[in-house]
Amino acid sequence: MILPRTGVAVDVHAFGPEGTPLWLAGLEWPGETGLAGHSDGDVVAHAAADALFSAAGTGDLGSVFGVDRPDMAGASGVRVLGEAAALVRAAGFEIGNVAVQLVGQRPRFAPRRAEAEAVLSAAAGAPVTVSATTSDHLGFPGREEGLAAVATALVVARG
Amino acid sequence: MILPRTGVAVDVHAFGPEGTPLWLAGLEWPGETGLAGHSDGDVVAHAAADALFSAAGTGDLGSVFGVDRPDMAGASGVRVLGEAAALVRAAGFEIGNVAVQLVGQRPRFAPRRAEAEAVLSAAAGAPVTVSATTSDHLGFPGREEGLAAVATALVVARG
Amino acid sequence: MILPRTGVAVDVHAFGPEGTPLWLAGLEWPGETGLAGHSDGDVVAHAAADALFSAAGTGDLGSVFGVDRPDMAGASGVRVLGEAAALVRAAGFEIGNVAVQLVGQRPRFAPRRAEAEAVLSAAAGAPVTVSATTSDHLGFPGREEGLAAVATALVVARG
Repeated sequence: MILPRTGVAVDVHAFGPEGTPLWLAGLEWPGETGLAGHSDGDVVAHAAADALFSAAGTGDLGSVFGVDRPDMAGASGVRVLGEAAALVRAAGFEIGNVAVQLVGQRPRFAPRRAEAEAVLSAAAGAPVTVSATTSDHLGFPGREEGLAAVATALVVARG
Repeated sequence: MILPRTGVAVDVHAFGPEGTPLWLAGLEWPGETGLAGHSDGDVVAHAAADALFSAAGTGDLGSVFGVDRPDMAGASGVRVLGEAAALVRAAGFEIGNVAVQLVGQRPRFAPRRAEAEAVLSAAAGAPVTVSATTSDHLGFPGREEGLAAVATALVVARG
Repeated sequence: MILPRTGVAVDVHAFGPEGTPLWLAGLEWPGETGLAGHSDGDVVAHAAADALFSAAGTGDLGSVFGVDRPDMAGASGVRVLGEAAALVRAAGFEIGNVAVQLVGQRPRFAPRRAEAEAVLSAAAGAPVTVSATTSDHLGFPGREEGLAAVATALVVARG
């Protein structure tokens, strides 16, 4: 029996200066302050991608898309997730699902949850669910210093 | 082959004023200061419920039990978990298991772990395991500003 | 159909005084300040072990290796993970995989990732993947007060 494998990942980005556009869960959020970073800082898409790497054992976001892939500098979260899914499949795995939770006081996520899930699921070629919670004003997400996301993924080696 | 799906969730609540009763992992903890919130603030039960939603892709705690379910205002953690399990089953999934870890300096959880697992497993109609750790006096749980819980769940679409 | 079970665990340790040796992910890291604790403070190995307990429902690190096992005082992370895997197998489970992510600003993990995965996989007798991320200078890992690790594991009851 080939058992599926689970993976887990957290991603964190600090907010950038006012006026930085916010890209989150594959979507642009007009009027919201965005995240700093070499990329678009999309913690939801990054956590999803890193959970896939974690499950498959194919490295991690920093090492895979860092030094060796200058073409990924500034890549969108959607592109990061799409490339990660392609690498995991190329390593011999089928992707079961990815589940991500955003942790932050804002933006209000629920009204665009279905839209985010559609965009990220298309990027991954597998079901990606996205949920959101606040941290009840505690910790760095509660102080609105940044956003965090936690993700899990399930993959299985192709028989 | 129908692959199972994993989900993940974090829940955080701040401590309320002294004298607030503590409900945690489906149990009352006499003599311990409780958590603030619209509900009983049971981070363990809430994380378990939200991990089920995350795995099944049926929304999240805030959206499912928020605005649309005024009858859930002030609901106990056990009831929240029971309703979440029922919704996930109604959406066509069998629940494999749920695993939750409490992160906080207090209360001392180990003596009541088996009791908590029995109550939450009965509520979910599936095995719910509960573990606990401190954060070594770091972060908001370490400063005893609140409690956090992290959970994962495994579900599978009924054939 | 016997469904596999997932588990989840976080582990946190504060840095010790300068000169404390750092043991992390089963490896010694010369020149890096280590973690405080009764054990070697190896958050990666401890999170891996605790995720196995979480999946199998066989207690948690604090209760299993605390009071009742004085022989485990000061045990290495590798030994903790090996003993945890043995206990989970003795409880009737096969171990599918374990995935761990280190969260901290240092040490730079990528150059030794493969080495860490080999040591921890040997200890667990199952694939253990290890990834790493920073928290973008936010929270206690960002302030370099300590290190955190988050892990998931998949086990299945032997038929």
